[in-house]
Amino acid sequence: MHFIIDKNHLFLAIQHVSKAVSSKTTIPILTGIKLEVDKHGVTLTGSDSDITIQMFIPVTENDKEIIQIFEEGKIVLPKYIIDIVKKLPSNEIEFKINDQLIVYIKSGSSEFRLNVFDAEEYPVIPQVNQEYVLNIQSELLKTIIKQTLFAVSTVESRPILTGVLWQLENNSLKFIATDSHRLAIREVKVETDTDLTFNNIVVPGKSLNELNKILPDEQMIVQIIFTENQLLIKLGHILFLSRLLDGTYPDISRIIPNKETTKIILETKKIFEAIERASLISKDVKNNVVKLIIKDDSLLEINSISSEMGKVTEQVEIKELEGELIKISFNSKYTLDALRTIDSEEIIIEFTGALSPFIIKPADHEKMLHLILPIRT
Amino acid sequence: MHFIIDKNHLFLAIQHVSKAVSSKTTIPILTGIKLEVDKHGVTLTGSDSDITIQMFIPVTENDKEIIQIFEEGKIVLPKYIIDIVKKLPSNEIEFKINDQLIVYIKSGSSEFRLNVFDAEEYPVIPQVNQEYVLNIQSELLKTIIKQTLFAVSTVESRPILTGVLWQLENNSLKFIATDSHRLAIREVKVETDTDLTFNNIVVPGKSLNELNKILPDEQMIVQIIFTENQLLIKLGHILFLSRLLDGTYPDISRIIPNKETTKIILETKKIFEAIERASLISKDVKNNVVKLIIKDDSLLEINSISSEMGKVTEQVEIKELEGELIKISFNSKYTLDALRTIDSEEIIIEFTGALSPFIIKPADHEKMLHLILPIRT
Repeated sequence: MHFIIDKNHLFLAIQHVSKAVSSKTTIPILTGIKLEVDKHGVTLTGSDSDITIQMFIPVTENDKEIIQIFEEGKIVLPKYIIDIVKKLPSNEIEFKINDQLIVYIKSGSSEFRLNVFDAEEYPVIPQVNQEYVLNIQSELLKTIIKQTLFAVSTVESRPILTGVLWQLENNSLKFIATDSHRLAIREVKVETDTDLTFNNIVVPGKSLNELNKILPDEQMIVQIIFTENQLLIKLGHILFLSRLLDGTYPDISRIIPNKETTKIILETKKIFEAIERASLISKDVKNNVVKLIIKDDSLLEINSISSEMGKVTEQVEIKELEGELIKISFNSKYTLDALRTIDSEEIIIEFTGALSPFIIKPADHEKMLHLILPIRT
Repeated sequence: MHFIIDKNHLFLAIQHVSKAVSSKTTIPILTGIKLEVDKHGVTLTGSDSDITIQMFIPVTENDKEIIQIFEEGKIVLPKYIIDIVKKLPSNEIEFKINDQLIVYIKSGSSEFRLNVFDAEEYPVIPQVNQEYVLNIQSELLKTIIKQTLFAVSTVESRPILTGVLWQLENNSLKFIATDSHRLAIREVKVETDTDLTFNNIVVPGKSLNELNKILPDEQMIVQIIFTENQLLIKLGHILFLSRLLDGTYPDISRIIPNKETTKIILETKKIFEAIERASLISKDVKNNVVKLIIKDDSLLEINSISSEMGKVTEQVEIKELEGELIKISFNSKYTLDALRTIDSEEIIIEFTGALSPFIIKPADHEKMLHLILPIRT
């Protein structure tokens, strides 16, 4: 193996793929980054066996030469190669191996001889046979991940709940997440292959968290490819591969109440800030509990009491009220998490009694729904 | 006590004084912030008994009313008052106490009743009788603290070395710090009271670290007042008070070699970056050891070897050489710490043999000196 590569292209690619590399792996070679050179360019791979990120650097880009290849080959570099590449003095970096276990790196006045792993021992990355494809804007995918991911379970007692359920029907993609105390649903229109439908694809929350770090905040089409147990995301020269969770996601349709007894419209910012302040006093109280009391058809109160800290009372104007007055207690953190994902100016809250879950949704569209279980006090 | 205060002024003051407040104190009331109201304004105090920060907010500033006072008084607020003030909805905040142990806070639609400490139990802050005063620019004080503080000892075996020695003679203020492996000296001209001289004021490193967080990066005169065991810094409406360390600082004059056998001039940036890259490979080696070899009168090599990681070799051009060729090993971290504080384009390094401490100093002035002990390999 022998090639010279542009420093910035290499650094960017290492940065991307190293997001999949974990130092806590039981397979030592997975702490490294695989580098393969063929006549088309350099491919870098990082993996923790659940998530794999691969990035390809072509020999030329926009008619500019990025790599000069003298000899093909492959090695597995230690992860700290990222620190070395970042600090190398020249914009050109030369890589050369004679022996399979030592790489020689030269850049300007700097020379490294690094011990590397044997590339033959790197696990084979599962091949994805293109099955179902759908296209979505990177920015939109990133947003809907953020709007649901926060609600996944972080405990392993029900592993299926640590993932986000993806459902597709009639070109409508729905993301669902719940930890059994709160639930988030977000729906968007997408372009798909004809008749593509699925209802039990569950993507690990951890994978979506990593995916969101590499999705660009810009107009760029992302291709999503599913197989039975793998999800593959293509964005430009980057491939993101994640395993899917096994098992059946619980049926959430019957837990969403559909006959509310109270419905209010509030200003999103006002209610958010009132609950946020109330939560400062509820911090030392179990479950971050705060209380909401509808006083009359134009005023609600949020309050919280802590024997150690004191008491807070907040008043929030009600824009519209339908139905009965109600008092209800809930976890302020869960409610703030939900409100934070809503960018509409006004929200609707629907209650079905003090002991039933309540619904929060934007006032101006039906594409998002949050469900929160109250707390019995 | 009863007053209304501008939110931003109060928030800024709480932010400043809370830097002295530690949650790890054995005196519970010191986890709080003292607030005193008299006819002139509001004084806030935070302290961990070693460091005290006080800030005064006047009733009016630039003809604008900041505080309306209805009744004087004092309380000790819990430290999380900072989060509450930050999030209050209105620019005006009303404080009122009836009972000494509960404060009522109102801002817009938000009302808090907080449990507070009894102000009578707050420790008395030592009075500083103005003894010796010197004046210095805030920006300059901040810089010279940074240029020496890094070299203080972090172990308590010789407590005096955890502080920075301040010496003043002939209107020249000298800061000295050492952990017995490396030493930093920085000298500046200052304005002082006539004939002010001292040679054994030792300011705790921790205090200087906190002081640097509140010193503004701008042209502003800071007043420094010393007494036998206290240092007081006045900057505008802020007072910063620190105890001094007891004991005699070791005499460092005899450990600075004055007959070098080799003297080289290097570009600061080039040698810094070469050692920085070499240190990437020395990370797993005890003492971060790297080796410097003067090859001939125009070239030196920096190298580092790790059996686990590999080897790095760096070449750096020598601008000028006087004396003998030399090979020397040293701790790369100590050397990088020293080089980082030098903003001159070129440095001088003076060696007195492979086993003697070497000196690094800027090539263009004599106001700074770093001494580093070599490592026997």
